[in-house]
Amino acid sequence: MSLLARVQTCRRWDPAAYRPFLIDGRLYGRIRQNLAERLRGFPAVFEVTDDAVALAASLDSFEARSAAVAEVAAVLREEGEIRIWRDEFYPITRRWGAAPELKMERGAVPDFGVRAFGVHMNGLVQKADGLHLWVARRSLTKPTAPGKLDHLVAGGQPHGMGILQNLIKECGEEAGIPPDLARQACPVGALSYLCVQPDGLRDDICFVYDLFLPEEFEPRNTDGEVEDFFLWPMAQVMETIAAGEDFKFNCALVIIDLFVRRGYLTPDDPDYQEIVAGLHLPD
Amino acid sequence: MSLLARVQTCRRWDPAAYRPFLIDGRLYGRIRQNLAERLRGFPAVFEVTDDAVALAASLDSFEARSAAVAEVAAVLREEGEIRIWRDEFYPITRRWGAAPELKMERGAVPDFGVRAFGVHMNGLVQKADGLHLWVARRSLTKPTAPGKLDHLVAGGQPHGMGILQNLIKECGEEAGIPPDLARQACPVGALSYLCVQPDGLRDDICFVYDLFLPEEFEPRNTDGEVEDFFLWPMAQVMETIAAGEDFKFNCALVIIDLFVRRGYLTPDDPDYQEIVAGLHLPD
Repeated sequence: MSLLARVQTCRRWDPAAYRPFLIDGRLYGRIRQNLAERLRGFPAVFEVTDDAVALAASLDSFEARSAAVAEVAAVLREEGEIRIWRDEFYPITRRWGAAPELKMERGAVPDFGVRAFGVHMNGLVQKADGLHLWVARRSLTKPTAPGKLDHLVAGGQPHGMGILQNLIKECGEEAGIPPDLARQACPVGALSYLCVQPDGLRDDICFVYDLFLPEEFEPRNTDGEVEDFFLWPMAQVMETIAAGEDFKFNCALVIIDLFVRRGYLTPDDPDYQEIVAGLHLPD
Repeated sequence: MSLLARVQTCRRWDPAAYRPFLIDGRLYGRIRQNLAERLRGFPAVFEVTDDAVALAASLDSFEARSAAVAEVAAVLREEGEIRIWRDEFYPITRRWGAAPELKMERGAVPDFGVRAFGVHMNGLVQKADGLHLWVARRSLTKPTAPGKLDHLVAGGQPHGMGILQNLIKECGEEAGIPPDLARQACPVGALSYLCVQPDGLRDDICFVYDLFLPEEFEPRNTDGEVEDFFLWPMAQVMETIAAGEDFKFNCALVIIDLFVRRGYLTPDDPDYQEIVAGLHLPD
């Protein structure tokens, strides 16, 4: 599987399978046709037509929207429609930093196909024989992508927390990186993707950080989410990504961006332009 | 002027003012309405309708297309329609690395609104007191953006030359950087923009390189295209970009990408997501 093919899998979804989810007339998400039909059963919360699902106009505040959607999500969970439940709220907005329209249970986010935000951190070690990347194997008990290869630190962005604050928290929980070291992580960009995954439609913005770690640093997982850590030379990372499915889909994207930013790919590669463009969807 | 506003100026154009320029039924450029009407005068080369300008289907080879368009361009130059003439050919393709459909006089490219490619290199110096960027002032005799601030090295991509090969050539001509040093430049990505400029509609892909230069390096212009060079600390570069119009529009974009990649901007800035997305147009 080429690097370009890995990027293209992060843009794969079928518009015909979804109905736009609107708030105040603006597109916020995409809902599977059968779930859209089910939402006709909640006329106080959703205005469902054959073309769209709109949040009821009567719900005109963050609190009212959040409470009404939470009640529906609880019913959908009972019915087995929402299969993964996180007990964690995500802010629902198209743009990070804008006031969210509502907060939504994280497990419902891919069902509504609304945008989510996350942090991904490349844990790097510059050794005498070249650049190395810390790779984590996700715990076999994770609800999504169990056993897949992951970044040293990555996590979804909960409601009410800043990006850097979340990164520092995740650095501690996932890899035992102390706050003073985590704070040295350098923000290096944002990637976007929109694709079908086992948990639903993922419309995410990934804020990416690089952190150069001392050679003697040994990551230590504290939240049970990581099975194992490996420190791989970049050539091994490239071979593994290109070979296929070992890395979680969005980690592959973040690592391909690392290849781009650090000159492991060059513009004279005929896929270069498409790979770079494919890391960023139009806003 | 905010950094976001600088990015947004690189996406400003009015679709109603242009007619799509098609080759084999696919969009390759955009032609001003009055020029589209003028092209009705060349029925062997262009099939002009009220909705589009298509390259004549009878022109079915690179050579035939290039020769036919060159004849038209020469007439348009005589008529003053094409005001800047470069005597240099650009390859016409939507994707770098694909075989071009034709080659076109560089001066005609913004009139046809076809995609062009270029290289931009950040010349960086890591000093004890922080990162510095080499800035060039363009010669007052340059046909585009005379006297504006520029990168140490930047240039359009001519037909028949590789990107790295062009970068090495421009490094020598514009800044006296020897080939062995130029070869150490690291490719760090590609940016895209589509906007109206004084010379026409610019639909460009910029391949971006960073080169770390020794402190003692002094650039030396050899082709008369540069008035002067300055080595500025990053804070001065940021202030100048944010203050307004001193930098050439596409240099500002490349430098804002540098800010993003090197952590001078952070995701908790409410403009961050839009700035990053604005550096990349959909392919």
